[in-house]
Amino acid sequence: MATAGKIIRCKAAVAWEAGKPLMMEEVDVAPPKAGEVRLKVVATGICHTDSYTLSGSDPEGVFPVVLGHEGAGIVESVTVLCNCTDQLTQGKGLMPDGTTRFSCKGKSLFHFMGCSTFSEYTVVAEISLAKVDHRAPLDKVCLLGCGITTGYGAALNTAKVEAGSTCAVFGLGALGLAAIMGCKASGAARIIGIDLNPDKFPTARKFGATDVVNPKDHSKPIQEVLVEMTDGGVDYSFECVGNVAIMRAALEACHKGWGTSVIIGVAAAGQEISTRPFQLVTGRTWKGTAFGGYKSVDSVPKLVEEYMNKKLKVDEFVTHTLPFEKITDGFHLMHAGKCIRVVLKF
Amino acid sequence: MATAGKIIRCKAAVAWEAGKPLMMEEVDVAPPKAGEVRLKVVATGICHTDSYTLSGSDPEGVFPVVLGHEGAGIVESVTVLCNCTDQLTQGKGLMPDGTTRFSCKGKSLFHFMGCSTFSEYTVVAEISLAKVDHRAPLDKVCLLGCGITTGYGAALNTAKVEAGSTCAVFGLGALGLAAIMGCKASGAARIIGIDLNPDKFPTARKFGATDVVNPKDHSKPIQEVLVEMTDGGVDYSFECVGNVAIMRAALEACHKGWGTSVIIGVAAAGQEISTRPFQLVTGRTWKGTAFGGYKSVDSVPKLVEEYMNKKLKVDEFVTHTLPFEKITDGFHLMHAGKCIRVVLKF
Repeated sequence: MATAGKIIRCKAAVAWEAGKPLMMEEVDVAPPKAGEVRLKVVATGICHTDSYTLSGSDPEGVFPVVLGHEGAGIVESVTVLCNCTDQLTQGKGLMPDGTTRFSCKGKSLFHFMGCSTFSEYTVVAEISLAKVDHRAPLDKVCLLGCGITTGYGAALNTAKVEAGSTCAVFGLGALGLAAIMGCKASGAARIIGIDLNPDKFPTARKFGATDVVNPKDHSKPIQEVLVEMTDGGVDYSFECVGNVAIMRAALEACHKGWGTSVIIGVAAAGQEISTRPFQLVTGRTWKGTAFGGYKSVDSVPKLVEEYMNKKLKVDEFVTHTLPFEKITDGFHLMHAGKCIRVVLKF
Repeated sequence: MATAGKIIRCKAAVAWEAGKPLMMEEVDVAPPKAGEVRLKVVATGICHTDSYTLSGSDPEGVFPVVLGHEGAGIVESVTVLCNCTDQLTQGKGLMPDGTTRFSCKGKSLFHFMGCSTFSEYTVVAEISLAKVDHRAPLDKVCLLGCGITTGYGAALNTAKVEAGSTCAVFGLGALGLAAIMGCKASGAARIIGIDLNPDKFPTARKFGATDVVNPKDHSKPIQEVLVEMTDGGVDYSFECVGNVAIMRAALEACHKGWGTSVIIGVAAAGQEISTRPFQLVTGRTWKGTAFGGYKSVDSVPKLVEEYMNKKLKVDEFVTHTLPFEKITDGFHLMHAGKCIRVVLKF
């Protein structure tokens, strides 16, 4: 490549300050250092975590920063995913060597979750990359970098849902739909989708929900409704919203003796979960998941293969595809709850 | 037996009201109904749960009642244990048919946890009994009806402690010592005992603790002390106190990615556990245990066998043996923290 070893000037959506709109800027992307790769980003999803950090709610958020962590790009052909193995530096917005590759108007910009895919070019650590089938459509499989993998893996790896079991999924956005898909793939006999917005129910059924419940239709707390519906409680529950009250409801909807509840959603900073210890002492288990319990990037190519073999839905998650420049419209769609996932194409 | 089918009049320690001392009374014990057994109680432990209910802290406690749930007695040779399979009636102080077998001065007395071993004779459901080796000393193996089994099983069954792992046990009473014994039996490489009372440390070491920590010796929160000591946190932790703040510390002392914390202690009514959901999302698991995760009474005879084969310590838990009439002295010893377990002999 003629650009190898040189600084590339390109467009990126820069978050200069918490709570302020993203600004489309010309940024400089330094060449990769040892153990790093510079990517031409082809597509990226917009995830709630990007919005959460942009809003300033994330106490560990640093600014100015290039957000985006669910992307696909080209060196040869790769998927970028959030990397949890070197949070010491990457959690602080820096590359493993403690420096940054982005700059704009003379200022350094921080990286985000080791990815920063809201930029035409980005630099990531080798360990944050997964090489996927070069025939895979990057504007679809980018979603395997975070959302789909997290929800799907929560059912398969974290909860280890068993065939014939009863599951409840709280929140029917991308995470919840992916969790439903994981429950179905595990052979769950009954999958109950829960959401305040009934517009989401038909899609949930298409993904595998056998029942749908709107808490607004009941005067009792939702956990009591579920315990009655299931004659004692569900075997597995998944919180896909990021609301601590729903996390408690999800635990308490589980059957005593063996029920397991998995937290997938990200709660606002400073909020805490709570319950009576009796809930655990009587045999329930409370867990959480990050990246669906997949321990290595090696799992992403396998998920891409499952998708290519029609075993895993991915296309169905992409309700909107916008050009990168329309990133702010993408955020608006997400906040309005009018999409499953918005993908930006470069 | 000449008494079969007849009412037996005998001595029992009656809890007439919450918060009042036990009264030694003459009570009438009705003959057993179908599926029930009347026992001559030979020995019973005094457990903190008896004291907890007597104090009035248990919102589900009913009075008047005959307490005691860690006993051994004779029909042929049996161990009474708390029965978790029919809590519908037994949790309400009644036999499975919804009635009671105890009366005193014309009043019905409730049963307790399906056991009521603070009486010379008691009636229990067949399913609450385990037949044990007739050579076993009943004034020792009665402790396998609750305390020892619960702590030991929490390590073996609930946490499934793995060989070579690092464990932390919070609270070095009978439950904590039994949990240490379970960790040791599982091959744990490092077992850290934690208590505010350093007098308990030598015994904890005798049971298998490799390290002991007194939170009073540190200015930092105990979870931070443990995370530093263990280079990131323990693999398994056990809360054996019944204090919700310690339950949180036990969870947060676990290693991210895989640490599991088990709540064994019983918290006061109305108290709640809490933590940041981040603690679970980063891969920790929060569980509880009742009766050590043993699902059937069949496990008790096996534990008695392990004890007879010197694989399980039981004698070492019995620091005081008193005649049944001295039950109030037994409660005083327990409250003063001057015993591991008090056993009452009839």
